[in-house]
Amino acid sequence: VGGQRPRFIAVIGGARCSADALRHAEGVGRELARRGATVVCGGLSGVMEAVCKGVQAEGGISVGILPGTAREDANPYVTIPVVSGMGSMRNAIVIRSAEAVIAIDGGYGTLWEIAHALELGIPVIGLDTWHMSIGGQEDLSVILAEDAQDAVEKALAAAQKRHSSSNLQT
Amino acid sequence: VGGQRPRFIAVIGGARCSADALRHAEGVGRELARRGATVVCGGLSGVMEAVCKGVQAEGGISVGILPGTAREDANPYVTIPVVSGMGSMRNAIVIRSAEAVIAIDGGYGTLWEIAHALELGIPVIGLDTWHMSIGGQEDLSVILAEDAQDAVEKALAAAQKRHSSSNLQT
Amino acid sequence: VGGQRPRFIAVIGGARCSADALRHAEGVGRELARRGATVVCGGLSGVMEAVCKGVQAEGGISVGILPGTAREDANPYVTIPVVSGMGSMRNAIVIRSAEAVIAIDGGYGTLWEIAHALELGIPVIGLDTWHMSIGGQEDLSVILAEDAQDAVEKALAAAQKRHSSSNLQT
Amino acid sequence: VGGQRPRFIAVIGGARCSADALRHAEGVGRELARRGATVVCGGLSGVMEAVCKGVQAEGGISVGILPGTAREDANPYVTIPVVSGMGSMRNAIVIRSAEAVIAIDGGYGTLWEIAHALELGIPVIGLDTWHMSIGGQEDLSVILAEDAQDAVEKALAAAQKRHSSSNLQT
Repeated sequence: VGGQRPRFIAVIGGARCSADALRHAEGVGRELARRGATVVCGGLSGVMEAVCKGVQAEGGISVGILPGTAREDANPYVTIPVVSGMGSMRNAIVIRSAEAVIAIDGGYGTLWEIAHALELGIPVIGLDTWHMSIGGQEDLSVILAEDAQDAVEKALAAAQKRHSSSNLQT
Repeated sequence: VGGQRPRFIAVIGGARCSADALRHAEGVGRELARRGATVVCGGLSGVMEAVCKGVQAEGGISVGILPGTAREDANPYVTIPVVSGMGSMRNAIVIRSAEAVIAIDGGYGTLWEIAHALELGIPVIGLDTWHMSIGGQEDLSVILAEDAQDAVEKALAAAQKRHSSSNLQT
Repeated sequence: VGGQRPRFIAVIGGARCSADALRHAEGVGRELARRGATVVCGGLSGVMEAVCKGVQAEGGISVGILPGTAREDANPYVTIPVVSGMGSMRNAIVIRSAEAVIAIDGGYGTLWEIAHALELGIPVIGLDTWHMSIGGQEDLSVILAEDAQDAVEKALAAAQKRHSSSNLQT
Repeated sequence: VGGQRPRFIAVIGGARCSADALRHAEGVGRELARRGATVVCGGLSGVMEAVCKGVQAEGGISVGILPGTAREDANPYVTIPVVSGMGSMRNAIVIRSAEAVIAIDGGYGTLWEIAHALELGIPVIGLDTWHMSIGGQEDLSVILAEDAQDAVEKALAAAQKRHSSSNLQT
């Protein structure tokens, strides 16, 4: 039955970000909605608002997991505000709810969301985002994308692949 | 803008419950969907599954805030599964996301959700649920309902009243 | 090894409370420290501060699980402040960390902590606190105590009993 | 009053780690305990167990914030087990409770703890841990250390500096 639900894709990135990041985020939101995916994000401003705006423009659904205690904190484009009241720990819920993650630009909050997704084996697609290395070895787990459309295609393909392999296991 | 979103009503009650509770829950789900409200619940079985079943039968939207780490834990009627991975603490998110709460039957998990809603000033409508007293005084904060339709009417009225008064304040 | 650690007892109750509750809480803190137990509480004022004051007077250790994001929120008697930044959800951590719970007086926050402890099978000792009933049946799970010393004796006995039976299981 | 409490230093690193990491962690634990600091960690195995072992050897206090629901999950050297039941989200509590963080080796869980600390302005000292860059710029926020003693000295100095500057503000 889970397979019949729309794909759930998280889009993450800072509340403060570059103009490029906003443009990318809105494009990602539009393309995800066109493809019938539901978008999960942090529900506030910056990248989060831009992606919800794109989703709304195409008649899609966005879920905003809010850090504060008030529904009114949601940006005006969020379809479904979820009020966590648990501060930035809500980042973990954004990630866990997703079948793939698109990371755009981003501050330290975005970095920990990327790390949490990789820890859980949820695929991460990166648009101008963090690179990491340890012990002199670069970590190549983030799948790089060229633009919004490329990011969405790679996210949906990675989610599909993950879904197929988990079906095979059971 | 928040006022233009559909009403968000939480429906709470145990995973194990009486046949009466299941019937009430499905009726509440149907009636909330007919009235255009979005339903928030814990996403699992029992009361949670029955309310989602009612919502789906009327073409509405239900959000299931799951305690575990897997989307697949959601009952088959949940429209939007949110994966919290934080165990029963997710009860607090179900409550905080709602403008009013309908409590049906229920074990200790339901009792703490009722207490949390009352603590936050979120109206609670009760169908065959807990009664509390302290220092020999009965607590009369839970609004009693006769049946599913009565519960939904009282929940929507309480949510509306709360919304109006918060608009006056600002 | 766990059995060689000191007993962990949670003491819960409102930030605003009666003078009787404060007296009870300080007495409970003193007696728990004399008996070598570590106290877990919410780390703020009212019952929480009074119990930590009692613990400190007898040279014991208290752990305060704070709802906010600043160590400085802890009352001055907390030995070990833990900063959760997750608001009142931290109540669940206070309860889960304990082998028995002493509830004194209390508002709705205390009610949900009681409910959460009963849900998890952690014994609750009550001093002038909530009574609950459902379907016309009174819930008799809370063990009633007469005064601070009685509460501590019952809490330590219940924790011991629970520990012994879980040892038998394994 | 907060200034009179011992320093709280978090030590983070993976449950699986190199032999070097274990040696570093035990040394860090010993040195922190000798200097009178309290240690906060995730309470499980690997780096977490080694640091608690070092603390215990010098008669210090360690707090283990556990992801699961059982006190018995704590490694045998944890002085004070705190049971969160919220899975890896408890990482955030380890970080928030600390005045400085020492990161040793580490997987993705450690990466997100580093990111969370930097987000909150809590100083991070790194021993053979992650490096990050974004937009071609290296992030130099993590203070590098040579060995266990160097890490402890830098952590205590950073905590002291942070404390002094926050006192000046008030």
